[in-house]
Amino acid sequence: MEKLIKENERLDIIPGTDLKIIQNRDKFCYGSDAVLISRFLKIKKNCTIIDLGTGTGIIPLLIYSRNIVKKIYGIEIQKYMANMAKRSVLFNKLEDQIEIVNIDLKLLPSIFPMKSFDVVVSNPPYMSYGKGLINPKDSLALSRHEIACTLEDIIKISNYLLKDKGKLYLVHRPTRLVDIFWLLRKYKLEPKRIRFVHPSINKKPNLLLLESVKGGNPELRFENPLYMYNKDGSFTDEIYKIYGMKKEN
Amino acid sequence: MEKLIKENERLDIIPGTDLKIIQNRDKFCYGSDAVLISRFLKIKKNCTIIDLGTGTGIIPLLIYSRNIVKKIYGIEIQKYMANMAKRSVLFNKLEDQIEIVNIDLKLLPSIFPMKSFDVVVSNPPYMSYGKGLINPKDSLALSRHEIACTLEDIIKISNYLLKDKGKLYLVHRPTRLVDIFWLLRKYKLEPKRIRFVHPSINKKPNLLLLESVKGGNPELRFENPLYMYNKDGSFTDEIYKIYGMKKEN
Repeated sequence: MEKLIKENERLDIIPGTDLKIIQNRDKFCYGSDAVLISRFLKIKKNCTIIDLGTGTGIIPLLIYSRNIVKKIYGIEIQKYMANMAKRSVLFNKLEDQIEIVNIDLKLLPSIFPMKSFDVVVSNPPYMSYGKGLINPKDSLALSRHEIACTLEDIIKISNYLLKDKGKLYLVHRPTRLVDIFWLLRKYKLEPKRIRFVHPSINKKPNLLLLESVKGGNPELRFENPLYMYNKDGSFTDEIYKIYGMKKEN
Repeated sequence: MEKLIKENERLDIIPGTDLKIIQNRDKFCYGSDAVLISRFLKIKKNCTIIDLGTGTGIIPLLIYSRNIVKKIYGIEIQKYMANMAKRSVLFNKLEDQIEIVNIDLKLLPSIFPMKSFDVVVSNPPYMSYGKGLINPKDSLALSRHEIACTLEDIIKISNYLLKDKGKLYLVHRPTRLVDIFWLLRKYKLEPKRIRFVHPSINKKPNLLLLESVKGGNPELRFENPLYMYNKDGSFTDEIYKIYGMKKEN
């Protein structure tokens, strides 16, 4: 197995699972947003799922760890990241359940027919192109800024990929909420369930988790807020539960 | 002054102000949403303001109590409610500062030129027409359901009434958030600042306070959540402050 892990890479345990993941500190490493969106999913058994911009492959691995799925595809435009994600899948012996595809998501109609999927999930770049400093390390920049694809590209292709009443799950920044709702309704993906994530109880939210339904009726259901930290800086009980970690005493 | 108050009406103190308001228990009485939106406003001195669907006239009175304004118009379609609001204005001797107009807000272009106002505020009916039970008492139904006007009517006329960079303030239900954002962007009133109101810390929000700017750039700023009640059922310190009430010990 040793040869699956290359120079500058390391093998990390995914907390709360039996799985491991290969990461490279110089590239984009997964964060709590990937964990939170994976646990926000409510899906039926034996779904076909696609993760747009899978990066390290963390979201397919996390979804697999808690759901009975038919197949999960992870789409990644960056060749090195896609290759690393593929090796993580191989390391976990999940090549029958998870397939990583190195392709620009705008080209997905060339390999998947319309309405192929029950569920689309994405943890897309948060920043509009031209906003914020562009990180000179290429893979970080592509993961954080809308360079390779915009939010509209992701939502447009989600409409193409999803079956009627199929679900799109997004994690994003609250500051982009108007853009998100505008584009989702434009592409007939009605926002149906939302949860805001706050650093702590008196802080404004810094993440949102959103479920949209293709062809759904207008009416947005809010979930109780999710707080990351207690006042003393420790994780809240719910965060421990989401990560599947045992609380230290 | 006695004759200003009619049968079935009563004179209420507006907490935290020197003002009084006439209300009728059989009709719509103002609630915390009117207080919260009035205190959410951030306006410059000597603005011209219009309140769409003023009901008892509570919002003009509350805005007047904490701001230096040029003039506030309160628009009300229901003849009896408009008359009662006018009498509240007279009772407080504010007829130079506040004018109540009994008109359908869709007809406002017949009395005000385009771009007449710095600020529009509205506490509109929350329920889409056809949703929920319609209250047989007419004035309650009109205040709660989109019978006389829809959210789109209010947002469309706000675009007409506001100067460039003028502000629209809305209080509404979170379940309507996608409709709200969709219509605001459609009518070039970009949502810029939002605050969610939660009954208490682990509950989902049941109200939202929103500032939009005519011709503003996309980017939504969240404020820290507002919690109404502590765990023991008492009001939070911030609610006491917003109401301008002294805390009981």
